[in-house]
Amino acid sequence: MKLQTAKGVQDFSPEEKIVRNEIVDILKETFERYGYLPLETPILERYETLAAKYAAGAGSDVMREIFKLKDQGKRKLGLRYDLTVPLARFVGTNPQLRMPFKRYEIGRVFRDGPIKLGRRREFWQCDVDTIGSKSMMVEAELLALADEVFKKIGLRVVIKVNNRKLLNGILEESGVKSKEKAIVSIDKLDKMPEDQVGRELKNKGLMPQEIKKLMELIKINNLGKLKNLIKNKEGQEGIKELEELAGYLRKLGVKVEFDASLARGLAYYTATVFEVFMCKGKFTGSLAAGGRWDKMIGRFLGRGEHPAVGLAFGLEPITEVLKKEGKKTLVEVFVIPIKVDALDIVKQLRDDGLKTDMDLIGRGVGKNLEYASALGIPYVVFVGEQEKKAGKVKLRNMETGDEVMLKVSEVVKKVK
Amino acid sequence: MKLQTAKGVQDFSPEEKIVRNEIVDILKETFERYGYLPLETPILERYETLAAKYAAGAGSDVMREIFKLKDQGKRKLGLRYDLTVPLARFVGTNPQLRMPFKRYEIGRVFRDGPIKLGRRREFWQCDVDTIGSKSMMVEAELLALADEVFKKIGLRVVIKVNNRKLLNGILEESGVKSKEKAIVSIDKLDKMPEDQVGRELKNKGLMPQEIKKLMELIKINNLGKLKNLIKNKEGQEGIKELEELAGYLRKLGVKVEFDASLARGLAYYTATVFEVFMCKGKFTGSLAAGGRWDKMIGRFLGRGEHPAVGLAFGLEPITEVLKKEGKKTLVEVFVIPIKVDALDIVKQLRDDGLKTDMDLIGRGVGKNLEYASALGIPYVVFVGEQEKKAGKVKLRNMETGDEVMLKVSEVVKKVK
Repeated sequence: MKLQTAKGVQDFSPEEKIVRNEIVDILKETFERYGYLPLETPILERYETLAAKYAAGAGSDVMREIFKLKDQGKRKLGLRYDLTVPLARFVGTNPQLRMPFKRYEIGRVFRDGPIKLGRRREFWQCDVDTIGSKSMMVEAELLALADEVFKKIGLRVVIKVNNRKLLNGILEESGVKSKEKAIVSIDKLDKMPEDQVGRELKNKGLMPQEIKKLMELIKINNLGKLKNLIKNKEGQEGIKELEELAGYLRKLGVKVEFDASLARGLAYYTATVFEVFMCKGKFTGSLAAGGRWDKMIGRFLGRGEHPAVGLAFGLEPITEVLKKEGKKTLVEVFVIPIKVDALDIVKQLRDDGLKTDMDLIGRGVGKNLEYASALGIPYVVFVGEQEKKAGKVKLRNMETGDEVMLKVSEVVKKVK
Repeated sequence: MKLQTAKGVQDFSPEEKIVRNEIVDILKETFERYGYLPLETPILERYETLAAKYAAGAGSDVMREIFKLKDQGKRKLGLRYDLTVPLARFVGTNPQLRMPFKRYEIGRVFRDGPIKLGRRREFWQCDVDTIGSKSMMVEAELLALADEVFKKIGLRVVIKVNNRKLLNGILEESGVKSKEKAIVSIDKLDKMPEDQVGRELKNKGLMPQEIKKLMELIKINNLGKLKNLIKNKEGQEGIKELEELAGYLRKLGVKVEFDASLARGLAYYTATVFEVFMCKGKFTGSLAAGGRWDKMIGRFLGRGEHPAVGLAFGLEPITEVLKKEGKKTLVEVFVIPIKVDALDIVKQLRDDGLKTDMDLIGRGVGKNLEYASALGIPYVVFVGEQEKKAGKVKLRNMETGDEVMLKVSEVVKKVK
């Protein structure tokens, strides 16, 4: 039997997981400070829910990439591919919720896609969404949140913003009929050369002059110019919304970059879209992304309006660009018993709040010191017969080599 | 289209998730203080790994309950049903790990089983395991940890302990040949009447006198008595190990109850087994359980000895018995703007570290107060034109109704 992980998934060792936990802690703390509450939805969803055309979108890659399975009762299930569709389903099935409903969810999502460019089949999304408000202040709040999170994590990023209504207006101005299909291709412009995207659009039935016009317009990253070029109603509405958002962001001191080619592949976005990239460096994928998705919940329910805006952080791309040296351990004190039983000493140190470990395999002192040193544990406590009788232990600072005799109750002061 | 969750899974609303997060925080803090480090393994595993007979065990229920699926490349996969098998696979594929390896993992596992008695198809396990030590001090440490966790959570529990070697000795003494199958049935004694378990054993081919003898012996919850009755080598070894463990637990001040009928259904346990139940009340399921599983990793690898002891806490049974009234919100201050824009005030409160939310749908003051009150938000801040000019806000204590004019920078002191 071959012993290995499944294709496209991976383990995260303690060293890596410690860094991941630090990032998740920053996200949770910030989400809660912005008034978002935790929610947990299942990983297993009915296949029908995940595959709904107003969720995945019939033309989108994500639809083909749903992991499908059946339970023993032959019910068709799927593994969720994002946290937005389960949220829409949750809001739809809980009419008693008070609006606006602000929630965050941090959890795994699954996509059965090709393994390339560091893409995994199982990865973590960290989502914040507000349901029930049409105000562009929600977008502003989320972008301020993104700005703060990346500053805390220590990454220099650029936040790009666009509006689907403006993109639709540009597509209309270019004469493109099947807008949704075109958007799926435009979304690839940051990963694929322009001529390749052009060929994909041609294969989808767009005329050469339509493609040419479209490529020209989406490169005009100037709202003022576009205002004069895009005269249709939807495009004008998109521009107006972007201007309103820009006003709020100025008040909050958040800098963003307008990019008319920013598309976001998912079918459910209806207005504002945004995506966060590294300012520089080799990594060109997005670190966080989101937008307004006003229609999915109403369509799920078959009634009513349920405006919504969300933002998802990708844990894997963030850790990848951070490339932070992980700590090998969290242990603060390692207890080495010398021909005595040190269980009671260990207990006392733990009761005092110290992250404490001990020799569990009866190694000699040298081997134990080597183990503690290899893991980078900062302090070692020696417990011998003499010390035990005197109610004391010997504490060694592993960095300096200094040793001092102390009462057990004094160790915590010295270490902390 | 029907809008509902898949069968056997559920959402956890913010109110429920806040309680779940509190418990997970206690577990994480305690695990780390006992020297355990975080690990993350994937939910998707190769089916072959999960179905290995020394993991699930051919006769065990868990084998039938593996959710099976295939990726687009037709590879056979399964959703993990516990966190122990992925850990064994991780240790097996990482020979560079330093021993002993102490890790914890908190995550979801999946079982495609019948929905009854509050069992779910997707649930959380919170596992601590030590790999690489034969010492019974590991068991002692884990039981001390369990004892501490339940005291912190505020549940009065009883920790039951047994040893598979003793159980095997009892089975041998009773003349039972197919011990593994019998153990799967004995494990059900806490959920099923004795005569029903007896019938199941009969169906598995045990003779009536074997069943009678077995039932007699496993009711003798007295190590001293069993020592005289079970004379075979394996049984004697089990008793010796239980006595050693009892010695360590006395030193640590941890009380446990010996129960010769405690079996634990999974095939991979080799010696000590333990399970934690409520002292009293209607809930008879286990809140935490585990044991020693010395052989699985070696069998996966086809070589070497890899002793291991683990303990898994069940998040769902713990929250179920806690039935703690959840908070509806974590928000500390709700900002109500009156004909002004309060984005900057909200920003300042958040920068000061307060969990702050604001009106995002332009409601009137009355509706906003009702919203804040319904969620149980303790403070409201009013921002009007006058106040803004004076650089002040009005802070209202929602419990007492008291209102006071303050500088924005003074709000945090008043609220915290």
